[in-house]
Amino acid sequence: MELEDTLLMMPGPVPVAPRVLRAMSKPMINHRGSEFAAMYDDCREIMADVFKTKNDIFVISGSGSAGMEAAVGCTLGSQDTAVTLENGKFGERFKSIASRYGKVNPVKAEWGHSFDLDEVERKLEEGAKILTLVHNETSAGILNPAKEIGKLTKKHDALFIMDGITSIGGDDVRIDEWGVDIAVTGSQKCIAAPPGLAMVSVSERAFEVMKGMDRMPYYLDLKAYKKSADKESTQTPYTPAVSLFFALQESLHIVKEEGMDARIKRHTTEGAAVRAAMSALGIEMFPQLKGETRYSNTVSAMKAPEGVSGDDIKKDMKKRGIIIAGGQDQLSGKIFRIGNMGNVMPKDIMLTLQQLEVVLMKRGVISELGTGLEAASEVLDTLL
Amino acid sequence: MELEDTLLMMPGPVPVAPRVLRAMSKPMINHRGSEFAAMYDDCREIMADVFKTKNDIFVISGSGSAGMEAAVGCTLGSQDTAVTLENGKFGERFKSIASRYGKVNPVKAEWGHSFDLDEVERKLEEGAKILTLVHNETSAGILNPAKEIGKLTKKHDALFIMDGITSIGGDDVRIDEWGVDIAVTGSQKCIAAPPGLAMVSVSERAFEVMKGMDRMPYYLDLKAYKKSADKESTQTPYTPAVSLFFALQESLHIVKEEGMDARIKRHTTEGAAVRAAMSALGIEMFPQLKGETRYSNTVSAMKAPEGVSGDDIKKDMKKRGIIIAGGQDQLSGKIFRIGNMGNVMPKDIMLTLQQLEVVLMKRGVISELGTGLEAASEVLDTLL
Repeated sequence: MELEDTLLMMPGPVPVAPRVLRAMSKPMINHRGSEFAAMYDDCREIMADVFKTKNDIFVISGSGSAGMEAAVGCTLGSQDTAVTLENGKFGERFKSIASRYGKVNPVKAEWGHSFDLDEVERKLEEGAKILTLVHNETSAGILNPAKEIGKLTKKHDALFIMDGITSIGGDDVRIDEWGVDIAVTGSQKCIAAPPGLAMVSVSERAFEVMKGMDRMPYYLDLKAYKKSADKESTQTPYTPAVSLFFALQESLHIVKEEGMDARIKRHTTEGAAVRAAMSALGIEMFPQLKGETRYSNTVSAMKAPEGVSGDDIKKDMKKRGIIIAGGQDQLSGKIFRIGNMGNVMPKDIMLTLQQLEVVLMKRGVISELGTGLEAASEVLDTLL
Repeated sequence: MELEDTLLMMPGPVPVAPRVLRAMSKPMINHRGSEFAAMYDDCREIMADVFKTKNDIFVISGSGSAGMEAAVGCTLGSQDTAVTLENGKFGERFKSIASRYGKVNPVKAEWGHSFDLDEVERKLEEGAKILTLVHNETSAGILNPAKEIGKLTKKHDALFIMDGITSIGGDDVRIDEWGVDIAVTGSQKCIAAPPGLAMVSVSERAFEVMKGMDRMPYYLDLKAYKKSADKESTQTPYTPAVSLFFALQESLHIVKEEGMDARIKRHTTEGAAVRAAMSALGIEMFPQLKGETRYSNTVSAMKAPEGVSGDDIKKDMKKRGIIIAGGQDQLSGKIFRIGNMGNVMPKDIMLTLQQLEVVLMKRGVISELGTGLEAASEVLDTLL
């Protein structure tokens, strides 16, 4: 029996609201017509508030990784250096991308550990054109101190490139206040549309840097996106994924209806609720915090309990119709992760935690039910 | 009154069948699970017949241009030369892309004119790693002789890269027989899914060439697509546009139900019907044919009649609820184009031609109605 009714509690793709699915299924339109232009304009206007920026925002038909590459590929020449900050899979991805375009001077922390900001500054002092940071490192459930790193980057006159793929639209992000020159997010995370679109904000300063580039990617050339967006009738340079734009627009309307302040409060409260439950159940969080580094509010990463693989927990949960995530690459089996991005509501958190308690009980990790639920409920009820 | 009921007769995006729209609106799934893998496998299997190839086929979440860049960026190093064939906007695009990666030795014909195959051979003799060809040049309504150019390319040991974006799935295309090393198509053309996916077939020989490349794009790295597709559970390297895959799968099921032979016959007959109508109405076709070059069977490009701009015809048709295309760039105003890609049926052609006759009558181009319709009907009725 296939009901198409699985509860996605992974860190993206996230559940898509029925009204967004309906919007997406509208008949096709001409992507060069006024109807498309109005839709794109509407999306860009709402996103200005989501990103908290006056910078131009563009939508690329491609995944978040395409957005990351656009940011790096348009600013890093073959003789330029990128300081790449890595404490998880996506920080590593930025390094891989940068190494295809120029030189890299990486700052490496263990996955899930905090960066040493003195080391970041030393690397910047060695000379860097850009610095790349993953704000919310999904793979490790850690929220990196973007504001502090932004200050260091500005002090050393490098461009600040930030992957906000799993924070923008859910957690507190301030692109202009933090001095982020290029910020990237994806449609299928906190904004809760289907996957397939990357949204990228670009500062004037970043566009200045692009003028001096000798070689740029083509499909991911941000100057082309600006040129098309600046036309009298707003366009994209290449055929956009029109149906996903229908979905994005409807998702952004939901964001606007909730309001960014309420949306951030909901995400942070839900993240806190998951952590409160884990603490009550004796499950350790995976990240090692230091300084201004915080636990992610949109995806919680927990150490697999003694004698149980994170993948087993994931599999047990799947049998119960709830999809959570395990660990990726070097963290495979060692952790399990629960996402609460997008339009995940408190009731979804409670169901997930209730079933997780049952799974942990059957695996002999805990000996009574309800402890985690009680702790989470107390936190979540502050939203009422 | 907005009925969302406009008839798209442009060369893409094309009308999307209601059953495809419904399939697309399924709730989100985990893109790393078995359900996604089965869907991707199913799409790849059907596409092998559509492309007529034994080569691997991958799906990139991005537009057709992303597929074109993947083909060129993965094979053309900075010291390598591409012979780029250009007789329209998309041939020019291949040249632009190639010039970002390596050297170009272009073969230029006037837009809509046939290539001089002796010139192609001379350029190949000067040494080329790859040759790029747009099979069906959408901007000019011309079908270039892929088979003949494939032979020349093979003779001179270059890789044959072909944009089949507006021919694959509609017209007669034989990837293996013609020796196409990398072929690209897009979801929103003859396959009639929404835009946002590029499908790319890659030969073993092309993968061999990629091994020697010092620098490759990241998001468009075809080796990464192969690695992920070769996993036990088929994947894409970056988060795929899952909803568009739902749509692609359903669209491919429609293709399979019709059968490729019938589908090609329908497209070629419809193209012939449009041309028969134009001939009867005294409207000239735009392309200048020579040798094995043919009129496109999926998009017909006509010269704007004396004293009337192609854009006026387009605007008049739009008022009547039918979207046709004008000319792009240097052809702006000079031509108008009618697409019949995907699931456009004879009745859609007849309605379009009937309204076009009315428009031409009002503009004083023709003096009686019905002549074009009669000619088209005779051709279309061979499909019954």
